[in-house]
Amino acid sequence: MISQTRRLRRTPFSDGVEAQGVSAYTVYNRMLLPTVFESVEADYHHLKKHVQVWDVACERQVELRGPDASRLMQMLTPRDLRGMGVGQCYYVPIVDETGGMLNDPVAVKLSEDRWWISIADSDLLLWVKGVANGYRLDVLVDEPDVSPLGIQGPKSDELMARVFGDAVRDIRFFRYGVFDFEGRDMVIARSGYSKQGGFEIYVEGGDIGMPLWDALFKAGEDLQVRAGCPNGIERIEGGLLSYGNDMTDDNTPHECGLGKFCNTHTAIGCIGRDALLRVAKEGPVQQIRPIAIAGDPVPGCDRVWPLYAGDKRVGQVTSAAWSPDFNTNVAIGMVRMTHWDAGTELRVDIKGEERAAVVQEKFWL
Amino acid sequence: MISQTRRLRRTPFSDGVEAQGVSAYTVYNRMLLPTVFESVEADYHHLKKHVQVWDVACERQVELRGPDASRLMQMLTPRDLRGMGVGQCYYVPIVDETGGMLNDPVAVKLSEDRWWISIADSDLLLWVKGVANGYRLDVLVDEPDVSPLGIQGPKSDELMARVFGDAVRDIRFFRYGVFDFEGRDMVIARSGYSKQGGFEIYVEGGDIGMPLWDALFKAGEDLQVRAGCPNGIERIEGGLLSYGNDMTDDNTPHECGLGKFCNTHTAIGCIGRDALLRVAKEGPVQQIRPIAIAGDPVPGCDRVWPLYAGDKRVGQVTSAAWSPDFNTNVAIGMVRMTHWDAGTELRVDIKGEERAAVVQEKFWL
Repeated sequence: MISQTRRLRRTPFSDGVEAQGVSAYTVYNRMLLPTVFESVEADYHHLKKHVQVWDVACERQVELRGPDASRLMQMLTPRDLRGMGVGQCYYVPIVDETGGMLNDPVAVKLSEDRWWISIADSDLLLWVKGVANGYRLDVLVDEPDVSPLGIQGPKSDELMARVFGDAVRDIRFFRYGVFDFEGRDMVIARSGYSKQGGFEIYVEGGDIGMPLWDALFKAGEDLQVRAGCPNGIERIEGGLLSYGNDMTDDNTPHECGLGKFCNTHTAIGCIGRDALLRVAKEGPVQQIRPIAIAGDPVPGCDRVWPLYAGDKRVGQVTSAAWSPDFNTNVAIGMVRMTHWDAGTELRVDIKGEERAAVVQEKFWL
Repeated sequence: MISQTRRLRRTPFSDGVEAQGVSAYTVYNRMLLPTVFESVEADYHHLKKHVQVWDVACERQVELRGPDASRLMQMLTPRDLRGMGVGQCYYVPIVDETGGMLNDPVAVKLSEDRWWISIADSDLLLWVKGVANGYRLDVLVDEPDVSPLGIQGPKSDELMARVFGDAVRDIRFFRYGVFDFEGRDMVIARSGYSKQGGFEIYVEGGDIGMPLWDALFKAGEDLQVRAGCPNGIERIEGGLLSYGNDMTDDNTPHECGLGKFCNTHTAIGCIGRDALLRVAKEGPVQQIRPIAIAGDPVPGCDRVWPLYAGDKRVGQVTSAAWSPDFNTNVAIGMVRMTHWDAGTELRVDIKGEERAAVVQEKFWL
């Protein structure tokens, strides 16, 4: 059971989530994030077939505004942002001075001097504020009243077109447009934490949250729209990483397989650049891999499960679930380079029970 | 229900907590914090009469180490630290450049160049790292493997003496000593998040957590020692504030009644000093107050409850519980200066239900 207090913040959509019968939560950025409605498996099948509305308000925004906003944004990430235009969203690893991951958010460029960073589960606001203060940058940094609402699933385009007009269909992947809802501007991006397609609506002003929620459900009745949430099976099948689960500040972006988002040579000004130059050159000694675990459905992965080759510990599993569609336990783990080749047979220790595990070539998706 | 994943970190004591029958959790610093064992009320009576062992590992430490450690520590807080010696613990409001509270931790001075900051619920580590980096300070900042274990209740001295020897009885309030357990040094402070007296053991190294836990329970059998946790009734009676519940980064220390911990004129170097000088001079326009709420036991305070005088909103309640010992609903709220005098009669809106509420002279304790 979870004890609900003000500290675990409700969202503009919490009343809607409760009315739709949420049955479990997690806490993410000190905010409630639904994890189950009907059941993880029923939610999973529905997500892959229909369309869901997700309360992901817990993806809080860090807003940078002012003449130094773009300079500060580049200080935070090894991804080269020079080619990024207004209207684009970039997945950006955020690193500290040692190259350790502090967050893996999506940056939204609103104008040359205004950005939103849509964060994973850590108080990135405090890092950004500390850096801005220490370097005496001319920029305002705060958390605005903006709450993302996810629309995910194969019928997302149809549902969104009914509420915002057909122009939403033209939004390209990781681009956004600005659309009207009841006289209010909303940033709508084609993005989201599933592989089923969809959008994220950056809802500015908590008061408009429930009117939008209700409009979406009304418009989508015949589409079988339901409340949903990031799905613990689907996101592992698709290899979507979870900060705090699959990586922490112990890990570099390269260990997380995010080297393709690092332009270490050209990302001039990035605080962690020096530390990452060597990693970029020599490569990491451990890396995230998809892993199949044999046997019956595994329990919830509430702690690290060590991976062994013989008596030697060679890694760990950090997320796992039974996949109905692929008929195996799908998992995400960090594996030493000596044992990370596809097909490598390992053993995983699940709270004292040993299971066979095999490194996969790629995620299932 | 709460979905348990690695991201919501277990503690070195989680196995013990589960064996003792924890029945509810909250999440604090992305770590599990027990909130109920038998029931909030049964736990409350036991805490006031016997002794409890609390898994408060979620009070993570931010360690500062290096030549600039003391300088950095003073940059973080408006409390003047010049008179603080090794062996002392200080409750220190931490503020940003606007004077907004980022955390309300306890600072532990281990030596002139080494500090622990025992934090409330926000990633203070990221603020401190950002500041240290921006100001190019010569200091290491990280989160060590240190997990506080609370011993609280009137029989705390007796239990602790049995495990650590009679010298623990001599530790003064907000002082610490270093004691041996199975060949390991442990910092033990007379402090804790209750008004019933007790200690906090800073357990260094997760591996020694359960041996210590077991030793405490074995030594305290006849003292009726039990697993416990910060108690939602007792802490409100005693006026112990909760960061995220009773105050946020919107509030200054003065609004939180923590002006006595601010030496704004002499805390040279504090980042928020300029912003707080005016507040210190003119006083805040709203402040935290004890508030009694009439009627039957109130529900859990999972969101802000507005306070009204006539039609005018004059504040909000942020924590509340039924107190068996004082036979009223005890509450903590933030009240505008026009209505904060003791005895002022207000109305509180509890999710649509109005109740009479009266500002109190002091907390119940």
